[in-house]
Amino acid sequence: MSFQTVRETNLGVVLRTVRAMAPCSRAAVASATGLNKTTVSSLVSDLISRGLVRETGVTAEHRVGRPGVMLALDETSMAAIGVEVNVDYLSVVAVDLLTHDLLTRHVPFDARSAGPDECVRQIAATVRETMDGPELSGRTVVGVSLAVPGLIDTATGTVRRAPNLGWVEVPLRDLVRDLLPDPGLPVQVDNDANLGALAEYLTGSFARTPDLVYLTGEVGIGAGLVTGGELLRGTGGFAGEIGHVPLTEEGPACACGRRGCLEALAGIDPILREAVPDRVPDRFLSASDITALVAVAVERATAGDATAVDAFERAGTWLGRGVAMLANVVNPRVVVLGGYFVPMGPWLLPNCRATASADVFAPDAGGCRVELSSLGLSAAARGGAAAMVHALDAGLLPLPAPRVRAG
Amino acid sequence: MSFQTVRETNLGVVLRTVRAMAPCSRAAVASATGLNKTTVSSLVSDLISRGLVRETGVTAEHRVGRPGVMLALDETSMAAIGVEVNVDYLSVVAVDLLTHDLLTRHVPFDARSAGPDECVRQIAATVRETMDGPELSGRTVVGVSLAVPGLIDTATGTVRRAPNLGWVEVPLRDLVRDLLPDPGLPVQVDNDANLGALAEYLTGSFARTPDLVYLTGEVGIGAGLVTGGELLRGTGGFAGEIGHVPLTEEGPACACGRRGCLEALAGIDPILREAVPDRVPDRFLSASDITALVAVAVERATAGDATAVDAFERAGTWLGRGVAMLANVVNPRVVVLGGYFVPMGPWLLPNCRATASADVFAPDAGGCRVELSSLGLSAAARGGAAAMVHALDAGLLPLPAPRVRAG
Repeated sequence: MSFQTVRETNLGVVLRTVRAMAPCSRAAVASATGLNKTTVSSLVSDLISRGLVRETGVTAEHRVGRPGVMLALDETSMAAIGVEVNVDYLSVVAVDLLTHDLLTRHVPFDARSAGPDECVRQIAATVRETMDGPELSGRTVVGVSLAVPGLIDTATGTVRRAPNLGWVEVPLRDLVRDLLPDPGLPVQVDNDANLGALAEYLTGSFARTPDLVYLTGEVGIGAGLVTGGELLRGTGGFAGEIGHVPLTEEGPACACGRRGCLEALAGIDPILREAVPDRVPDRFLSASDITALVAVAVERATAGDATAVDAFERAGTWLGRGVAMLANVVNPRVVVLGGYFVPMGPWLLPNCRATASADVFAPDAGGCRVELSSLGLSAAARGGAAAMVHALDAGLLPLPAPRVRAG
Repeated sequence: MSFQTVRETNLGVVLRTVRAMAPCSRAAVASATGLNKTTVSSLVSDLISRGLVRETGVTAEHRVGRPGVMLALDETSMAAIGVEVNVDYLSVVAVDLLTHDLLTRHVPFDARSAGPDECVRQIAATVRETMDGPELSGRTVVGVSLAVPGLIDTATGTVRRAPNLGWVEVPLRDLVRDLLPDPGLPVQVDNDANLGALAEYLTGSFARTPDLVYLTGEVGIGAGLVTGGELLRGTGGFAGEIGHVPLTEEGPACACGRRGCLEALAGIDPILREAVPDRVPDRFLSASDITALVAVAVERATAGDATAVDAFERAGTWLGRGVAMLANVVNPRVVVLGGYFVPMGPWLLPNCRATASADVFAPDAGGCRVELSSLGLSAAARGGAAAMVHALDAGLLPLPAPRVRAG
């Protein structure tokens, strides 16, 4: 391990310690880390110059002795950006070092019709606009996360296949990075369900639940699995493809080429075709179609329309089958339904919970609850942005360069 | 942390270090652990007196300087015992500190007919016989592991439910411990598939494969999941209940009360009823029935009998459906088929692999292979015994008391 690496490791250690203990003194950091006070002072100065830590006026009121200058995370200097590419929208979230929102945007966008090249241009343009916008003014962007509904090679940032987008082997990370002003900016690509699960685990209503599954409710259905507090990726990074588990032998055709997959039964597309059959055009649904049709379907169900209610309830039963399978295999504490499932929740949940209870072998569904996400359509983007902050803390991203400050 | 606990922690540290480095000198242990030489000498003396470490005549030939006395694990003094309680047999494995076999026994036993009380007496008697037998003569038993095909509360050692045994809420650990001579002997209860997976991960042909699933091939079918090198237990310890995932809506009745479960389609019972229909009695199959019928079915399939071959191949297809589900959800590197699936392997594997490939969403089944276990019907017993040794290393079991030695 080189001297530089030891110092970088220790910068991360001090950063994580300040995050956990703030407001806290340099002496407290030295005591908590076992590093000597001179080293801690040097590391803290470095983190301050990089805009990651700041001195505060808060004093340690409850401590004995002379109050010292206290340290906290500097939430004013940096930003991390998460972008979710979905079939019918782009979602953008930017957060500060405390993972508090700086900006959220939801852009209806027909990624399915646009194709990968146009999508790459649109993503890069969105990232550039976000970086240049007033919300991030004066901030250093430490990294960009891209969430995609598909099989991802996270090491190279390549989308292996995303059937709902029609993509095969798209080297998304490199294509997007080529269109950004700074070629050194870290860009990472991950599966949307994985990042949705991270969002729930790091920031959502079920934060710190060590065994948690997030189910995307989009044109596709994917699962992000957190087990024992860690994302379960599997040997090739392909875990959580619950949307393509067949649930019935003679089911409808799925975009993946098989029949009876969960997502062909309870994805947003088949739900809308059954819920508002008179309003659904005889073609792939566009982004604006989906937004409008979900609103109509929920409005009709609220008014008691039997067709809409039945469609939601049937989907709830199929989802319950999927939840039961997850509960039998990985036994999570909670399965969180996300995306468009949230507005449909009042009609989905009763059948989903009943079916899950009936189909799980362990008593009481193995202790597994089914709940709705509070993160809306930006869960994966938010999870991506939070994951970049987490990576910075963990020493997996380059720290921002020291700044030259006036005064 | 008390002084005693620090010392016990360090005893474990030195034990693990000797395991990893043996043969090695005290100085090498000090260097690897960061403990000072005096402390290491004291800890090593303690471990020697407890029969866990021994001095060897081997010298460090390739090192510079005066050769010292070398240390190795003492494989002569202790033993760990694993017992598997299955529907139709008890299996016993005892291992030494290197997890090498001291004894393996396979006892056909109708646990299903015997009921829990008789089972408890039989288990305790088997453990006592094993402890008193010639293979373990002079050894200290550090712990006993009990594997059961069912939902286990590992904290209390209670079998919550084991439908194939007909057990509900059986406090197995305490019942067995009450019948053993030493009430302080650690006894642990775990699910048979979990311990089978640990056996594969710790000692089998696929040892150290970080993402591995072991599928029991018994009257029941359970999955033990190792992900990222750790056993995946889930929030209540109920993960891996793949035998009770329904695969077809109008399938045969299952012991769990549902229909079309994997184990009602590809458990040993339905396989035998289809493979050798003329030989299967019209009742629950007894232990000796199963042993005999498996032999007949394999013999007939080997001779080309179409009924037997078809039954095995159909079961292979259903197993492939189950493997595909596992591969879609947790994306393991290998699914290992155990138990009675092993002798049927030549006929099960082709359809199982083909179906898995076809049903997995990721290309190439997500990199998941399907292979046969080399651990036979003793996998769970072996995994339990190895887990006790592992727990000793990890400081989770009391170390054996120091011995008074002659001379």
